[in-house]
Amino acid sequence: MIGSLEPRAGWTADRCTIAGTLSVIATRSTFLILREAFYGTSRFDDFAHRAGVSEPVTAARLRELVDNGLLEREDYREPGQRTRQHYRLTGKGADLFPALAGLMQWGDRWLDRRGGPVELRHRDCGEPVAVELRCAAGHMVGPDELDLAARQERRHGATAANR
Amino acid sequence: MIGSLEPRAGWTADRCTIAGTLSVIATRSTFLILREAFYGTSRFDDFAHRAGVSEPVTAARLRELVDNGLLEREDYREPGQRTRQHYRLTGKGADLFPALAGLMQWGDRWLDRRGGPVELRHRDCGEPVAVELRCAAGHMVGPDELDLAARQERRHGATAANR
Repeated sequence: MIGSLEPRAGWTADRCTIAGTLSVIATRSTFLILREAFYGTSRFDDFAHRAGVSEPVTAARLRELVDNGLLEREDYREPGQRTRQHYRLTGKGADLFPALAGLMQWGDRWLDRRGGPVELRHRDCGEPVAVELRCAAGHMVGPDELDLAARQERRHGATAANR
Repeated sequence: MIGSLEPRAGWTADRCTIAGTLSVIATRSTFLILREAFYGTSRFDDFAHRAGVSEPVTAARLRELVDNGLLEREDYREPGQRTRQHYRLTGKGADLFPALAGLMQWGDRWLDRRGGPVELRHRDCGEPVAVELRCAAGHMVGPDELDLAARQERRHGATAANR
């Protein structure tokens, strides 16, 4: 899997988008609040309670997720009550689902003999859903069949040679 | 996506395997060191340098990853030098790749206009590789086509009703 990044010493991952993603969803509480958003939680109190996170931390995490465009906040008001906020996933937030599902799938497989508490199923056909690596030609790609390659325009050697 | 976990209030994710996974790979430095292992890094000094993590933190993270069975340590010795350690991914560690690829794919899409510095390609056919959700029947599953369901044995209401 690693051949294409050799010589590794000539290349650093300083524009790494895993690190970038982790800057946005930096903490365990962020992951857990996002998890709750995927499970359908929308109200502040429910986030704090269900994610098991203190209210000040929940408030900070929700604010960050809104600021980063992963959640959007909507005001709502039930008769006779004060205005409250609903939070829901944006497209950008929802697009994190495969990564979270990947973390869940790993935990289901390696940490929990019972296979985890939540099952993902395809609504149309009812079959269980898994996170897979597939190429654009539709082949399933195992870990031994992967090449990691520095994108041409960022590969210092190649860039220098092309000039 | 959320219907099946309703009524949500009757159910808590206290056996959540996302939380479990995050207990194993808890910190940003753990993710970055794992990333380097996927990129082919094996020596202590290279992990510290390439992940941009201090040596004490690198030592602590590598020890945790070995203790948790994600990396294995091997002694090696070049002529005339002291014994050193190599680290390499176990099957359990390598199985985290889809989750890390999911984080990378999200970052490539949402945080970096150039699409990220590393490309995943299928070695056999050269086509780019993506993280997808697929059901066991082979259908690609979009976020609107997912059901999240509490596994039967853990769904308190259902369990009570079945008794």
